[in-house]
Amino acid sequence: MAFDYSTVFRPGLPPAAARWSGFPKYNFVGGHNDGAAVPVQDFIDAAAAVLNREGSTLATHSLESGSQGYLPLREFLAEYLNKSTGMTDTADDILLVSGSLQALDLVNDVLLSDGDTVVLEEAAYQGAIQRFNRLGVRGIGAPLDDGGIRMDTLSNILDDLKKDGIKPKYLYAVPTVQNPTGTVMSEERRLEFLNLARKFDVPIFEDDCYADLTFDGSRPRAIRALDDDGRVIFCGTFSKTIAPALRVGYLVAEWDILSRMLAVKRDGGSGALEQMVLGEYCPDHFEDHVTKLRGVLKGKCDAMMETLAAEFGTTAEVEAPVGGIFVWVTLPDSVDTMKLFEIASAEGVAINPGAEWVVDPATGTHKMRLCFGNPTVEEIREGVTKLAEICHREFGVPERGSNIER
Amino acid sequence: MAFDYSTVFRPGLPPAAARWSGFPKYNFVGGHNDGAAVPVQDFIDAAAAVLNREGSTLATHSLESGSQGYLPLREFLAEYLNKSTGMTDTADDILLVSGSLQALDLVNDVLLSDGDTVVLEEAAYQGAIQRFNRLGVRGIGAPLDDGGIRMDTLSNILDDLKKDGIKPKYLYAVPTVQNPTGTVMSEERRLEFLNLARKFDVPIFEDDCYADLTFDGSRPRAIRALDDDGRVIFCGTFSKTIAPALRVGYLVAEWDILSRMLAVKRDGGSGALEQMVLGEYCPDHFEDHVTKLRGVLKGKCDAMMETLAAEFGTTAEVEAPVGGIFVWVTLPDSVDTMKLFEIASAEGVAINPGAEWVVDPATGTHKMRLCFGNPTVEEIREGVTKLAEICHREFGVPERGSNIER
Repeated sequence: MAFDYSTVFRPGLPPAAARWSGFPKYNFVGGHNDGAAVPVQDFIDAAAAVLNREGSTLATHSLESGSQGYLPLREFLAEYLNKSTGMTDTADDILLVSGSLQALDLVNDVLLSDGDTVVLEEAAYQGAIQRFNRLGVRGIGAPLDDGGIRMDTLSNILDDLKKDGIKPKYLYAVPTVQNPTGTVMSEERRLEFLNLARKFDVPIFEDDCYADLTFDGSRPRAIRALDDDGRVIFCGTFSKTIAPALRVGYLVAEWDILSRMLAVKRDGGSGALEQMVLGEYCPDHFEDHVTKLRGVLKGKCDAMMETLAAEFGTTAEVEAPVGGIFVWVTLPDSVDTMKLFEIASAEGVAINPGAEWVVDPATGTHKMRLCFGNPTVEEIREGVTKLAEICHREFGVPERGSNIER
Repeated sequence: MAFDYSTVFRPGLPPAAARWSGFPKYNFVGGHNDGAAVPVQDFIDAAAAVLNREGSTLATHSLESGSQGYLPLREFLAEYLNKSTGMTDTADDILLVSGSLQALDLVNDVLLSDGDTVVLEEAAYQGAIQRFNRLGVRGIGAPLDDGGIRMDTLSNILDDLKKDGIKPKYLYAVPTVQNPTGTVMSEERRLEFLNLARKFDVPIFEDDCYADLTFDGSRPRAIRALDDDGRVIFCGTFSKTIAPALRVGYLVAEWDILSRMLAVKRDGGSGALEQMVLGEYCPDHFEDHVTKLRGVLKGKCDAMMETLAAEFGTTAEVEAPVGGIFVWVTLPDSVDTMKLFEIASAEGVAINPGAEWVVDPATGTHKMRLCFGNPTVEEIREGVTKLAEICHREFGVPERGSNIER
């Protein structure tokens, strides 16, 4: 008399997950990173050192650092962020979280209710878009150009909302290596952004999760660093610079809101071992590691760009990213990238269909996001070549490959 | 022009968290564990071994194991649970989660909506009670005796609900070292429990988070092991056997519901490093470690019981726990343990007021829960002595201490 769980599921559940069947052969999705770049030996050394010194503190939730997370890691971050972004926050202003996904969830849990409005970039992180949808929050996409959010159209959006008596709960931006378009917002534009936020009296949620990974190592001052009003909530993560499986991210904000996010962080603490290992590893190694990783990613990016050019030719419109782990590609109108995604997936090539990475799905129908962080250079070349073949076969474009007439 | 976050907080937020101010001197709360028992050297060795072998897999969310979590750890659990509980599940039936708190959250996210009913033990884990309250779920407390939930009164509760046309979404129990009363439900009663669940066609959520810690090492077969209908969702954790700061727990259930919990587990994966270290450590060390820990906890329990007897005398009604890390104490009607908690807290003694550990707060007014897992034997003796002094001073009981007339 097997129990029938369908009689007890709550309404509105997403579809059941499928059984894990391994990674696709050509895996151009997800925030995965370069395996060879994981600093294994340094991690072993860091783990030994910190466990020797403080291992017994694992016996208490919060170690000996309290609910904001392992203090030495917060101290490292305060110093690193000051050096790299101009922020002047201290360890007390930082909350360690289980990846930037939890940062998103905490900000949303404190600010958002069904029916609220948020303004975000018109092309954005799929996970953020899905969260707004699930929360019943209306996301308004602000048009982008090669410098990030356009301030003229943003101003219009905020004006129109105001005329309707609506104040967005926050403005959400990924201003340094924007996801998925890969742009960087200049300091000048960041100041305009802050002026608009002040004019309309709204906070900004600045998600800087790719910001350490500009290929030339440059990075504008954080919006939070340029802000005098305490209106910017900042988040970052070690997922992109070190390893996503660690699940260590961070929020930086005024105590006024940080204390509220702490109050809704009911998970008994984020994983302590990773925080301890990173706290031990980072002061001596983080910057060298990131410098090295940038080089690795630049090489993979070049392979991606070259293969796209060789295999798709003018069919694929793509700006060379200035950093990060993905490219954003526009294909001809005849290509439905959702269909391409489904077919390619069945043939071992995983891509992100553009419709899931834009606020208005209709604007992403011919776009796709391809991640190059994890596959090897060889896999990138083979996989993109295969993708072009599939695309040609299904949609008739591209017409010519690098060597062969299709 | 500092931004005023109070203008954007969503309604219904809990109060802001306070700044961390360290642990109380006598810390009789929380799921904290014994610091000296954390297997530091073995952890260092395990970390080195697993990172050497597989460290580069940290580059991908899910390592190489998929979203159910690190496969070797699931394989260890399948074998261990078979040996210790009679369960016959495999690694495929297990989902690794971020502590049993996440297990609670996933079960609730899949089954519960505002207005639903759950039947639970009349005295229960504070975190579970708070979750039901926040979800707008009605929790009905089933009376307990020294063998756990009484089946006669449970039967009446289910009958009465049925007459009102109500089916509880699930029956929630902590049957092995019940939290907070410390009892163990016999196999005979577990079979009655299953019969009632079958009769009323409801699932059971079996939370076995203290079950490895009976002082004599005995453990009845899990309710899930005795069940033929697949109606039992089981969870456990490494927080109580190894260290709570690791945040590693596990769910065991039919794929029908496990796949739904996976679909709502949107955190990008639970922390991988802890899972890898435990996966390496446990096969060779877990059972010896737990055996040793039981001895340590028994010693602390004895100290707690002795000091309660010496300092509170007949004023404190307490059953000796058969395992775990806490005692459940009933004081005279003249003692309001919420008041005692507040006053003692200000004087460096942290206790759990009973009203927060029972479904009907009025039934917990004179009860308190004291944890002995983390404090040293000396701290236990000193802290409980101090608590008795405070209690005497504020409420006039106890009247006599071990040596001195109060």
